[in-house]
Amino acid sequence: MLGKREIGIYGGLSLDQICSSVEAEAKKYNVRTEFFQSNSEGELVSYIQSCRGTFEGILLNAGAYTHYSIALRDAIAAAEVPTIEIHVSNIYKRESFRHVSVIAPVCLGQICGFGMQGYILGFRALMEERLDPWLA
Amino acid sequence: MLGKREIGIYGGLSLDQICSSVEAEAKKYNVRTEFFQSNSEGELVSYIQSCRGTFEGILLNAGAYTHYSIALRDAIAAAEVPTIEIHVSNIYKRESFRHVSVIAPVCLGQICGFGMQGYILGFRALMEERLDPWLA
Amino acid sequence: MLGKREIGIYGGLSLDQICSSVEAEAKKYNVRTEFFQSNSEGELVSYIQSCRGTFEGILLNAGAYTHYSIALRDAIAAAEVPTIEIHVSNIYKRESFRHVSVIAPVCLGQICGFGMQGYILGFRALMEERLDPWLA
Amino acid sequence: MLGKREIGIYGGLSLDQICSSVEAEAKKYNVRTEFFQSNSEGELVSYIQSCRGTFEGILLNAGAYTHYSIALRDAIAAAEVPTIEIHVSNIYKRESFRHVSVIAPVCLGQICGFGMQGYILGFRALMEERLDPWLA
Amino acid sequence: MLGKREIGIYGGLSLDQICSSVEAEAKKYNVRTEFFQSNSEGELVSYIQSCRGTFEGILLNAGAYTHYSIALRDAIAAAEVPTIEIHVSNIYKRESFRHVSVIAPVCLGQICGFGMQGYILGFRALMEERLDPWLA
Amino acid sequence: MLGKREIGIYGGLSLDQICSSVEAEAKKYNVRTEFFQSNSEGELVSYIQSCRGTFEGILLNAGAYTHYSIALRDAIAAAEVPTIEIHVSNIYKRESFRHVSVIAPVCLGQICGFGMQGYILGFRALMEERLDPWLA
Amino acid sequence: MLGKREIGIYGGLSLDQICSSVEAEAKKYNVRTEFFQSNSEGELVSYIQSCRGTFEGILLNAGAYTHYSIALRDAIAAAEVPTIEIHVSNIYKRESFRHVSVIAPVCLGQICGFGMQGYILGFRALMEERLDPWLA
Amino acid sequence: MLGKREIGIYGGLSLDQICSSVEAEAKKYNVRTEFFQSNSEGELVSYIQSCRGTFEGILLNAGAYTHYSIALRDAIAAAEVPTIEIHVSNIYKRESFRHVSVIAPVCLGQICGFGMQGYILGFRALMEERLDPWLA
Amino acid sequence: MLGKREIGIYGGLSLDQICSSVEAEAKKYNVRTEFFQSNSEGELVSYIQSCRGTFEGILLNAGAYTHYSIALRDAIAAAEVPTIEIHVSNIYKRESFRHVSVIAPVCLGQICGFGMQGYILGFRALMEERLDPWLA
Amino acid sequence: MLGKREIGIYGGLSLDQICSSVEAEAKKYNVRTEFFQSNSEGELVSYIQSCRGTFEGILLNAGAYTHYSIALRDAIAAAEVPTIEIHVSNIYKRESFRHVSVIAPVCLGQICGFGMQGYILGFRALMEERLDPWLA
Amino acid sequence: MLGKREIGIYGGLSLDQICSSVEAEAKKYNVRTEFFQSNSEGELVSYIQSCRGTFEGILLNAGAYTHYSIALRDAIAAAEVPTIEIHVSNIYKRESFRHVSVIAPVCLGQICGFGMQGYILGFRALMEERLDPWLA
Amino acid sequence: MLGKREIGIYGGLSLDQICSSVEAEAKKYNVRTEFFQSNSEGELVSYIQSCRGTFEGILLNAGAYTHYSIALRDAIAAAEVPTIEIHVSNIYKRESFRHVSVIAPVCLGQICGFGMQGYILGFRALMEERLDPWLA
Repeated sequence: MLGKREIGIYGGLSLDQICSSVEAEAKKYNVRTEFFQSNSEGELVSYIQSCRGTFEGILLNAGAYTHYSIALRDAIAAAEVPTIEIHVSNIYKRESFRHVSVIAPVCLGQICGFGMQGYILGFRALMEERLDPWLA
Repeated sequence: MLGKREIGIYGGLSLDQICSSVEAEAKKYNVRTEFFQSNSEGELVSYIQSCRGTFEGILLNAGAYTHYSIALRDAIAAAEVPTIEIHVSNIYKRESFRHVSVIAPVCLGQICGFGMQGYILGFRALMEERLDPWLA
Repeated sequence: MLGKREIGIYGGLSLDQICSSVEAEAKKYNVRTEFFQSNSEGELVSYIQSCRGTFEGILLNAGAYTHYSIALRDAIAAAEVPTIEIHVSNIYKRESFRHVSVIAPVCLGQICGFGMQGYILGFRALMEERLDPWLA
Repeated sequence: MLGKREIGIYGGLSLDQICSSVEAEAKKYNVRTEFFQSNSEGELVSYIQSCRGTFEGILLNAGAYTHYSIALRDAIAAAEVPTIEIHVSNIYKRESFRHVSVIAPVCLGQICGFGMQGYILGFRALMEERLDPWLA
Repeated sequence: MLGKREIGIYGGLSLDQICSSVEAEAKKYNVRTEFFQSNSEGELVSYIQSCRGTFEGILLNAGAYTHYSIALRDAIAAAEVPTIEIHVSNIYKRESFRHVSVIAPVCLGQICGFGMQGYILGFRALMEERLDPWLA
Repeated sequence: MLGKREIGIYGGLSLDQICSSVEAEAKKYNVRTEFFQSNSEGELVSYIQSCRGTFEGILLNAGAYTHYSIALRDAIAAAEVPTIEIHVSNIYKRESFRHVSVIAPVCLGQICGFGMQGYILGFRALMEERLDPWLA
Repeated sequence: MLGKREIGIYGGLSLDQICSSVEAEAKKYNVRTEFFQSNSEGELVSYIQSCRGTFEGILLNAGAYTHYSIALRDAIAAAEVPTIEIHVSNIYKRESFRHVSVIAPVCLGQICGFGMQGYILGFRALMEERLDPWLA
Repeated sequence: MLGKREIGIYGGLSLDQICSSVEAEAKKYNVRTEFFQSNSEGELVSYIQSCRGTFEGILLNAGAYTHYSIALRDAIAAAEVPTIEIHVSNIYKRESFRHVSVIAPVCLGQICGFGMQGYILGFRALMEERLDPWLA
Repeated sequence: MLGKREIGIYGGLSLDQICSSVEAEAKKYNVRTEFFQSNSEGELVSYIQSCRGTFEGILLNAGAYTHYSIALRDAIAAAEVPTIEIHVSNIYKRESFRHVSVIAPVCLGQICGFGMQGYILGFRALMEERLDPWLA
Repeated sequence: MLGKREIGIYGGLSLDQICSSVEAEAKKYNVRTEFFQSNSEGELVSYIQSCRGTFEGILLNAGAYTHYSIALRDAIAAAEVPTIEIHVSNIYKRESFRHVSVIAPVCLGQICGFGMQGYILGFRALMEERLDPWLA
Repeated sequence: MLGKREIGIYGGLSLDQICSSVEAEAKKYNVRTEFFQSNSEGELVSYIQSCRGTFEGILLNAGAYTHYSIALRDAIAAAEVPTIEIHVSNIYKRESFRHVSVIAPVCLGQICGFGMQGYILGFRALMEERLDPWLA
Repeated sequence: MLGKREIGIYGGLSLDQICSSVEAEAKKYNVRTEFFQSNSEGELVSYIQSCRGTFEGILLNAGAYTHYSIALRDAIAAAEVPTIEIHVSNIYKRESFRHVSVIAPVCLGQICGFGMQGYILGFRALMEERLDPWLA
């Protein structure tokens, strides 16, 4: 079982589309997924904490919290679940305050700049890391 | 035809393995690939410049040059070929000078922390962006 | 219809007084107002997001969040409703960390240092901008 | 009697328009106004110094001097006349050197981003502060 | 009556243990205690605001929020209840971003590095300050 | 046997009072204490070095040296005796240069802002750490 | 008609010499020139503002004002006359505060380090840009 | 004999055009020129070192290397040949990292922002400095 | 003959008093003095330039210009008249931007914090330096 | 009685000369002086502490300790004796680390750049402040 | 066998002299040496990489590359051959950008300021470390 | 006669061993040595001052004082005896505050990272510089 959390600030439709795409991909690997979205830093922290021992991977788009939420960072570190940081846009092309990710040092890796496709790439990265440790 | 350039500072064997893996993946998409490796900033600059109008995508692991080679940055911008920045390790877990990428703002996106698998992920990102613009 | 949100950390009484004053002012212009107060960054983000396409203006006193909440900033930018930043005190007379507003670059303008009167001034600024585009 | 000084670097016409608008507003409150415009930091300093004990309020658009003229700052502090800092544009949307105002800490408050309307808003802020101390 | 708030991100068991230890200590001084834990910055802010006029002291472990939550800082300053900042670990041995506490300037004092014992030390500090003003 | 060193820049009387208070506390635990005070960085360094293998704990108020004496830091690290950093005032409420402690990273913990009581708290912290390792 | 303004802080003689040299050069191109020198930032600002719509080019040696006069910068931007920044000395060989030019971003280009000859070079740059757009 | 080196990263055609223009200009002064272009920092360093005692002047467009190549800086200083730094664009209008030139302090002067014409201006600056020392 | 220039932003009376005191002191040494006061940076620059070859010393209170007027700095350096920097207040007890003097490096020395007496001390410093080179 | 302490790192002879000069000056005012010189920060701290309630003024040349000895700063503040900071050289003409004085904010004033004469000027400043409070 | 690489930017003669001196020294220890010099960062990187498993020590004068070549740093770290950093001049007496060595953290040690003798000292350091581990 | 001062914070035994090793080396060159060790910055300053005109060289391990003791720096500069800075460890591999040496700019050179052997290398550097000026 693998946990995936698309945490964004996108409107209903496109969030649904991401979920559908990831779910379709998940079926190929026969894994169960769960989606969670919230504007609240505290709810995100609680959800990530609750993943400890339950999920085998997290895909996290922390949106604006990426750049200052040390609470999220500590939650990721405490959860001890491999977490992949996803950004829809290339954050390095934007304002300089978006070039800093306080969660990056506690994540497995970062994928940014590939739009919605980033979630699929991140999902596969989690899958293949489990199937083919040689590559990783 | 799609260009791919694994530019690293790895020894022969593993570089070959990366090439093989990417080539295998490329066959599935029926695209031609080319590999280039050099320790010389100038040769990397020249190679990237030569891709203009010839290749449809670049996978670039710029190694240590990532962090200071403005010449590489200008070459990427001048080549006008979609370029994906790959790092084998999670550069945000390492020394603080590795947290800055001078090439990131002119690349399409960044993938880091997934070991050799990063090249495969980057290859698919280039492929799918061409096949399925909706996702991107 | 014009939206107004006095988001502060003031006790019940004075918050009521601000609301009454703004409402009285609003009657002169014949516009409907709505008030929202929360200590939660996430609730503020959600409320501002919900204004998109519903309100024609926002008066925002983001209190301490002014200085670090990039999530609020992104919500304001995404809402695409003209937003006026209000501060009761002159933040430039206080600690240096209060001299930086991360939301200012996405607001229409800033009014600070005029106490409760700032809300009235902000309300008129929104009104007159709509009535008299020449001045603005 | 209330002093107002539109100090800008705008051409003749629009400066006249601002003066007319403020004067019209001033008539409603039955107060006398005076206008002063100069490109010279020294003349601005002298004018502000001369307001001490003569005027009851200053509306100051210090233009580019906002960002470095400590001489203006000292003049405002020495004049001991409530001064309101006006900026036609939202300075926080512009170059980073315009985000710092060396005069803000000695002014009553700041109004920026409302175009010419800012002068009217500032005028009313001065008026109402005198009429209705409760609000301030 | 004295208020105490162990606000941490620890699992259930050890949080209970802290509560028991502090309660046992509190009985010696014949004071009433209350415990509050939340991952939400907004709830923490609201709780601290609600202590005004009700409690005589706060023991606060703000966790990651210590380092950036100006909202918590303002809540502590507004509550006007003597607050002691507790950190289980020695924050000065950890990452440099943990060396800055934005709440320290509005707290009575800071105790860090003594594990769970820090809560007991902080409790006694609050007690003895009330019993023996000469020492403080 | 436990070593305690109240190193301050206080006048004779209050230093005596601190010593008496700590000594009275020490009798409860049946431990021997020794006091040392000096204005000389070199003497402080030598004294701390001499504690190696002799004392079981140090209470250190390094006064102004806290903020720049790397020599003290190295002495503490070399002594390998658990050291608690005490500050009578809350250093985070004072000038910004006092917010940095160069010795904190090599101390067991820090207690500041509790006046003379800080020494008693620090003493108990050392005692209880020895008696009750579970709490620490 | 082309405007040229040698604004320096040089004594009479050499200033005359510069004027003569530039005038001689101007005759070859059959253009009219005007010279302006002032120690007053305000006069320089006013003069540059007055060039709008009158002159076709400005050679500006802003001397010490180069490094801090945002007022000059704004005047150049408002004048909308191509302006060339001239420095007699190589400012990059001098004190570090002279390495920053606040006017450079609004000038056409910069010529420094060539002594009096810089004015001639700047004059030709203005001329040839008009005569031979291909080169520019 | 005067050495000139147009070192750029421009395509073949326009580089030829620059060479032709400079050569035509050189004929007027009856001096011999040599052109060198390379993407390699090391080759540029070697070429500049080889100019020592052979050429009487260098026109150097160091492209991206301008901003970080201390090796180029040391080569220029060691060559002891008057060197003029040329930039086709106004580097002060671009990204902030391009505002710093590590080679400027060892060059005779800098010319930037005049497009291809910059090479001609630089050539004349070298020529006239030799012919007319009074101007320089 | 010795020149002295009390350049301040003080009202008429006390400026007169300073002049009288310095003049009385000057009579003891039988030297002629001249006083100059202006709010205009440009007039101060011109006056100081005009001292070259005329006066033997300058007492300069540059007020707020102390902290940013590189034009004044260059004027002092160009005048080549020994200049003593006077500040009535101790600028190091005030805001941090007043701790920097851009003119200090080109002055003979600095006297600050002694109120009006500073002018007398500065005058004697100039006198005695001429009479008794051994002391200096 | 007035205390004076020439604390320098000068050889025996010139230190004697300074003492003689100050003593001669002191006789004119009929005050007793005492001289103290030490290379030890701790001894300087102790001496300054001992001046509390004994001397009416201190002339302090803290040499290199000026730039980092917070211990000296605290001693001056604790002594509550008016202290004048003397520097033989103009510290603002030297290395940038000498431009910062950590003791300046707790001194009455600063005199620097006048060689040995600085001690005489400082002595008179102390004397006249006592005799003629109007001037100060 | 011990490898030694004098990598400098010196002319032929003195490089030969260094080689001769080191070779003479090497004969005393009966070890084989090899010399390599290049202006190309890439060639230096390749050479250092090729030392892995072949040489037992490297003497490296990286010249200007010392200050920015992260590629060299990574090559040294990857080669896993003890490397000693040599600088002919005392880099700490020169421009501030030369005070930073990006390769120092991956070298065994640094020797600078002893001219050509530095190579001999470095050679002996490598030798004696092998012969006499106690000293190291 | 050559002076050598091993100033460390090492225990008795290893300090003796260093002294013995250096003394043995010194006998080969027939020079007299003297050893000095102190924890006191002031004593170190005094000792170095006393070397002026007496010793021909100093080997200085300033320990922690390396990083902040401007007093030591001034003593070395005043002593005018060639001084070699020794560090047993490679300070560039340690905490970033140890990467700065305030004494390096006034020393002849620096040797670090070679353990106790550094003293022998430093001794030989001093010797050979005197015997063989060509190498230096």
